[in-house]
Amino acid sequence: MAEEAAKAARLAANVLKTLNNDKRTSALKVIHDSLRDAKDEILEANKLDLKIAQEAELASSLIKRLDLGKGDKYDTMLQGVLDVATLEDPMGRITLARHLDDGLDLYRVTSPVGVLLVIFESRPEVIANISALAIKSGNACILKGGKESFHTFTAMSKVVQSALSRTSIPKNAVQLVSSREQVSELLTQDKYIDLVIPRGSNELVRTIKSSTKIPVMGHADGICSIYIDQDVDKEMAGNVVVDSKVNYPAGCNAVETVLINKDLPVATLKYVVDALIEAGVTIRATAEIQKALEKQSPRIVLASDQDFDTEFLSLTLAMKFVDDVDAAIAHINEHGSHHTDVILTNSIATSDRFLKGLDSAGVYWNASTRFADGFRYGFGAEVGVSTNKIHARGPVGLEGLMTYQYQIKGSGQIAGDYLGAGGTKKFTHQDFVPSKQ
Amino acid sequence: MAEEAAKAARLAANVLKTLNNDKRTSALKVIHDSLRDAKDEILEANKLDLKIAQEAELASSLIKRLDLGKGDKYDTMLQGVLDVATLEDPMGRITLARHLDDGLDLYRVTSPVGVLLVIFESRPEVIANISALAIKSGNACILKGGKESFHTFTAMSKVVQSALSRTSIPKNAVQLVSSREQVSELLTQDKYIDLVIPRGSNELVRTIKSSTKIPVMGHADGICSIYIDQDVDKEMAGNVVVDSKVNYPAGCNAVETVLINKDLPVATLKYVVDALIEAGVTIRATAEIQKALEKQSPRIVLASDQDFDTEFLSLTLAMKFVDDVDAAIAHINEHGSHHTDVILTNSIATSDRFLKGLDSAGVYWNASTRFADGFRYGFGAEVGVSTNKIHARGPVGLEGLMTYQYQIKGSGQIAGDYLGAGGTKKFTHQDFVPSKQ
Repeated sequence: MAEEAAKAARLAANVLKTLNNDKRTSALKVIHDSLRDAKDEILEANKLDLKIAQEAELASSLIKRLDLGKGDKYDTMLQGVLDVATLEDPMGRITLARHLDDGLDLYRVTSPVGVLLVIFESRPEVIANISALAIKSGNACILKGGKESFHTFTAMSKVVQSALSRTSIPKNAVQLVSSREQVSELLTQDKYIDLVIPRGSNELVRTIKSSTKIPVMGHADGICSIYIDQDVDKEMAGNVVVDSKVNYPAGCNAVETVLINKDLPVATLKYVVDALIEAGVTIRATAEIQKALEKQSPRIVLASDQDFDTEFLSLTLAMKFVDDVDAAIAHINEHGSHHTDVILTNSIATSDRFLKGLDSAGVYWNASTRFADGFRYGFGAEVGVSTNKIHARGPVGLEGLMTYQYQIKGSGQIAGDYLGAGGTKKFTHQDFVPSKQ
Repeated sequence: MAEEAAKAARLAANVLKTLNNDKRTSALKVIHDSLRDAKDEILEANKLDLKIAQEAELASSLIKRLDLGKGDKYDTMLQGVLDVATLEDPMGRITLARHLDDGLDLYRVTSPVGVLLVIFESRPEVIANISALAIKSGNACILKGGKESFHTFTAMSKVVQSALSRTSIPKNAVQLVSSREQVSELLTQDKYIDLVIPRGSNELVRTIKSSTKIPVMGHADGICSIYIDQDVDKEMAGNVVVDSKVNYPAGCNAVETVLINKDLPVATLKYVVDALIEAGVTIRATAEIQKALEKQSPRIVLASDQDFDTEFLSLTLAMKFVDDVDAAIAHINEHGSHHTDVILTNSIATSDRFLKGLDSAGVYWNASTRFADGFRYGFGAEVGVSTNKIHARGPVGLEGLMTYQYQIKGSGQIAGDYLGAGGTKKFTHQDFVPSKQ
């Protein structure tokens, strides 16, 4: 059953990748129109899910994410599909063109990864987002929603499937599965599925990472740090630290650890701490920090070692002294999650040292951790945020769903005629600017 | 023990990535000179390994790969280290520069993957190649050699370690381990090791892939196919198919399956088959092919279904008819290993369909599968060949050891001032040409 779905997705992917941009883009418009026309019935189904969630007393944050009728969420979702449609075609871009010899040219051409398995929890709008991104990028996708959005998911998937049947996109290019058993089977289909993208809690990501051989793109933790150098403006430091924590404490790009240079003027430290307390933040500070602050507050509590390996996801952060920028780098490389880390300093040399020394997807100088976001980076659409070291890192746009192929266009050349494989001919290896393919 | 080694490699990597190109390049020169000066003692150790291998009656191909004193192999290895030293610095290249707002700029900068675990079998020269590639690209590496090259490995690692101690490269940036137990422990160190690169038999690669959560870059199979369209020159077809099989039958880029368009003129089919037979190739042909050939030969035997999923790695290939280019694409996408596949045709339209429809790292038109090689592609040095779908595909050069980081250089901006995070400011998202960092 899971194998059949995965194999069908692979066959659909093989067709989808041959369709030109016009066909893929016009399919997105059909999906957009269908979702627009079915708004009432989808929101009806969504209300049923909300009712069940409220009766089951699920967390209010979860119910908020589930609610598709809230504000302009539905229209934003619809607009998102159109926005993806208008993005430049990510397929077939030539990123290398090299003459190997007369009539023998090498091209590196962008192509879809293939089959994506996207597993998400309560946000039903992910169905529209990911379907749009997948079709635009020529990838087939299998979508698995959470059980709390079952009715919304079912209604939306009917609309999307029916829309696809009126386009040239193979119907198995977007498949929707809802049972939990199917997921564990799908995670074994490494022959047919190329990439797993979990969208949800850290626990979901961790569970998936440890139960599949298929590459997983995502992030389990977002332990972001800010290092405050001794040479810094206190207003800027307070401003950036507060925004990084308070702007959206549940975000994976919220700051969790603040490292203070031991020579930072005490007045600056006090300014930053006061700004945090005023913003409602609880500071888990080491004894040394508490001593330097010379004040007591219910919002200042003693930090444990564990706090410096914790993603609080709330109005709490951990704070300690470090000797210098190298100690900050060492701490973050060891305890951070390679997501996004910041240095606040007036010194170009110190910031350069920090940016070069850190092993994270995002390294910022004098800016809030909260800028780590696909829309803020100008990617148009975001697949998620990756803390992987290979393939795509940080906020991932359409490019993260692409890979490449090497094409050679020859005229009957054989390797045996060339040096190194028995012959005497030499390769020219001259890069050139390709004409449009 | 393995955890200590992995952690030490990570710490070394964090230093190595901050060293400039001059320091990394001059270290390679020191390694080159040391290996040159220690040639006699290393070849002495190599002779001991060869003696043991001969006494143990290991396969002659293995003994050949083990022999470092053969021909100019040692000098080629030395030259390889210098060649890598002269390659352009792969670190710190800016691949995206974008204004987000006044005084707030986003950069995407190439950076090393981090810590590599390289596991190889009998070729001792891999120590020099990979050490050079790793240091040049700013990656730390842990090298594990096969037991058959134990003495060579030990002698070379002493020389490399002693050479490193006279440079600014941290000594744990290149570590060499020789026991098999250590490998299985190292494969669990996903906290510290970023990428595993197996260099050896298909069995080695498969075993490693199924026993680690760390991404593995490599290829287990090389089932390359050639599809001969009906519209083709018979001389070219014969020439390319023979080269693809015969030039180096044990190579992962040798052809294993030949698909014949059912409307190919019988004279062309006969020409290709005769050319293969004359070159010593055994053809596992379906009954339909045999019937069309109207001839018997000890080199034509009946194919089983299994033959079309087999990497022969010898002077044998499988041959069958397919209905058309679409059937060829479907066969290869299902039975191939996504390594390198070829269409031979005079038709641009048919070749275009083939190149667009195939899901392989290399797709060639009218050229031998044997061109799938880093040196032939002009990469200067080859890490290996990858059949992964994400990160690096096909022949992998220095670029395959690189990832990227997003850097933001700001002047105290906070997300809360911008649209979408509570504020009213807009992002400019203007790409620009960066000055040299």
